[in-house]
Amino acid sequence: MADHNNQTIRVGLLGLGTVGAGVAQILLDPKGRHPLLSELTLHRVGVRSLDKPRTLSLPPGVLTTDLAALVHDPAIDLVVEVLGGLEPARSLMLQAIGQGKHVVTANKAVMARHGAELFQAAQAQGVYVLMEGAVGGGIPIIHPLKQALGANRLTRILGIVNGTTNFILTQMTQGRGDFATALATAQSLGYAESDPSADVEGEDAADKIAILATLAFGVQVNRQQVYCEGIGGIQAVDLRYAERLGFQVKLLALAQRQGEALDIRVHPTLISQDHPLASVQGVQNAIVLGGEPLGEVMLQGPGAGAGPTASAVVGDVVNVAATLRADSGYHPLLGSGLTTPMPQLPTDAVQTRFYTRILTQDQPGVIGQLGTCFGDQGVSLASIVQIGSHEQLAEIVVVTHRVREGNFWLALAEIRQFPAVAAIPTVLRVWS
Amino acid sequence: MADHNNQTIRVGLLGLGTVGAGVAQILLDPKGRHPLLSELTLHRVGVRSLDKPRTLSLPPGVLTTDLAALVHDPAIDLVVEVLGGLEPARSLMLQAIGQGKHVVTANKAVMARHGAELFQAAQAQGVYVLMEGAVGGGIPIIHPLKQALGANRLTRILGIVNGTTNFILTQMTQGRGDFATALATAQSLGYAESDPSADVEGEDAADKIAILATLAFGVQVNRQQVYCEGIGGIQAVDLRYAERLGFQVKLLALAQRQGEALDIRVHPTLISQDHPLASVQGVQNAIVLGGEPLGEVMLQGPGAGAGPTASAVVGDVVNVAATLRADSGYHPLLGSGLTTPMPQLPTDAVQTRFYTRILTQDQPGVIGQLGTCFGDQGVSLASIVQIGSHEQLAEIVVVTHRVREGNFWLALAEIRQFPAVAAIPTVLRVWS
Repeated sequence: MADHNNQTIRVGLLGLGTVGAGVAQILLDPKGRHPLLSELTLHRVGVRSLDKPRTLSLPPGVLTTDLAALVHDPAIDLVVEVLGGLEPARSLMLQAIGQGKHVVTANKAVMARHGAELFQAAQAQGVYVLMEGAVGGGIPIIHPLKQALGANRLTRILGIVNGTTNFILTQMTQGRGDFATALATAQSLGYAESDPSADVEGEDAADKIAILATLAFGVQVNRQQVYCEGIGGIQAVDLRYAERLGFQVKLLALAQRQGEALDIRVHPTLISQDHPLASVQGVQNAIVLGGEPLGEVMLQGPGAGAGPTASAVVGDVVNVAATLRADSGYHPLLGSGLTTPMPQLPTDAVQTRFYTRILTQDQPGVIGQLGTCFGDQGVSLASIVQIGSHEQLAEIVVVTHRVREGNFWLALAEIRQFPAVAAIPTVLRVWS
Repeated sequence: MADHNNQTIRVGLLGLGTVGAGVAQILLDPKGRHPLLSELTLHRVGVRSLDKPRTLSLPPGVLTTDLAALVHDPAIDLVVEVLGGLEPARSLMLQAIGQGKHVVTANKAVMARHGAELFQAAQAQGVYVLMEGAVGGGIPIIHPLKQALGANRLTRILGIVNGTTNFILTQMTQGRGDFATALATAQSLGYAESDPSADVEGEDAADKIAILATLAFGVQVNRQQVYCEGIGGIQAVDLRYAERLGFQVKLLALAQRQGEALDIRVHPTLISQDHPLASVQGVQNAIVLGGEPLGEVMLQGPGAGAGPTASAVVGDVVNVAATLRADSGYHPLLGSGLTTPMPQLPTDAVQTRFYTRILTQDQPGVIGQLGTCFGDQGVSLASIVQIGSHEQLAEIVVVTHRVREGNFWLALAEIRQFPAVAAIPTVLRVWS
């Protein structure tokens, strides 16, 4: 492995598909991100064909089709694998590890089936295999399981971990057609592949729950024994009936300790409308982790797509870079407070929406007067209504559009002087 | 600092209140948690008084009132500070750092005001100051900001980070009294302190958003300049009107980049009922992080209490322990796959609830026959209804209680043979 003190850390990227292009884009544009990213170079990018048209502009000489040479290149410190599929991804990762290189991957298929082999090889070489991008796209889930949640006795993982199927089920639930129609919509939007079987049949979700269960419970999961049922047989009528009974239908991946055995499976599941997972819509993913003494946490976000997954992959790259830079003030846990000064907006300059309740004499024209006064101060209103009355006074509620705080308070100071205004008991801000 | 190769890692605990007792409990009962916890000893526990009655039974000789001696004890490798309050917590942490000890803290007040000072001292000594427990209780938020999300340009943090005020607002929204009544309920349930001002006035939330903004944006936050408005003035009538307008009222802590300035504030806020934060109830906390290319993630869970906060604190302890044990196969990022075999439950042995839709001839007695057959196989039913009809057949939907899968399938095989049964188009599982 290259000596990396005081020189750039060289990244070899395997794959330039959707996620690979997202990774390259972040590495080539480090400004405003973690400061360690500016110490990285994208040294080589391994692809299947040099001729494929690409929108991304890479430095000259970076592209190569010789993937084996990339993982053996002594200049490269860490290899990012986003080829997908079992081979050659697995072999290339093993070769990279054998060369003493750290590996970052988003490959759930390899990690679910050959994770133990890769971790053993990495342990022997003293390098990392990190895989935050393999599950839940941009949701931080792998690191929390290994780190922040390590004190718990984890007992249960319950997740919506496949965006394609959740999108299809959401479409069907909203009455936008049957399975075939919803799948076609997903494909036209780029949410499903032309061969959607791994998603639709639940195999992708099974890979992910196998990875999560391994980490959460510290056990070996036999991926072949994970019961796996897809959503291809779901009929719209059952979604309607489920809803009438108080449920939503989701493709759930779940793993839980049952005494000394592991209950791990993926299948379409009715889940109570009160459960937080029931309201996870479209391509979103969400994972609920339960344990003692934690209770339950839920982590939710975009489960797939170039940006979110690349965010997770490059997060791992930053982690590896921090361990390589441990001698120049970076800590492996990135604990230091590298901060720069930044002015804080004074309250008057903040832009926000407001809600205010005004008590006035119940007489004609008051609403008009209020509206005019706000308008004169440049405060644009979303609504102004007499919503009730209170001790013979009219209760008028005003909701503004986004305005400068200073302007709002000037208007309110004037309004307080109106003879018809008895009191302004409430001013609250509105999030938008 | 002690030499810690091949010997136990010694923890000094400052404080044995709610969180401290939770921390001690985990450290004294490591089985089934992260394996590194069994290499830790609770060496000293610093308290204000030895005479206070305690339910927790500690090893003899561990309790001490000499807090300064604890942080100077050369046998101690890491100090856990859960005293709360500014002093002596800050000084003791600085002394511990000065002695080359790692520090784990849940002290948001100190970290929001003196974080830079502590991190600088830690950097100079090459030790960690970790603070996962300072924000969001058991929700992993500090580590993700530092690690998994480091590749992003973060632009926005929006959170419900104070459980006490969220509980009070939830009570008021549900019509369970005005502010004073809801506060009294919170106090009687242990959700609010006898002096609730730091929570109610928003100062606790302001500490937390200052910490999060520092990490997310890499900027110095002037805690005194964080605009902070509490919920003491909220009237039940405004919660009702807000609901009529399509909003919920939450105490939001928010920080966002506005050009070259930071917009950071805490105030009660109307938030659209469609927003995921609007449905965060009771003492739950939730934090939404937005950035590029991530999009948005939401992290939700129990924001306070002994168990969740202790879970986060001890998670940090495990992290420190891993860096101390780096030479015996543990990596600072806890990357290795230390796993043990665990049998996986065969599908037949799984316990679950079922939903099934059965098409039958529309004749009397069919529902009774179905019910009897399920009962004979030990399958207890939650409901059995004729929900519709389809091509002159009756559509019967059955929802079971939790049953052994094998029994359910036996019953279903028998039912398939009933002359009146035309088809069983759907079998789905139900989560409970």
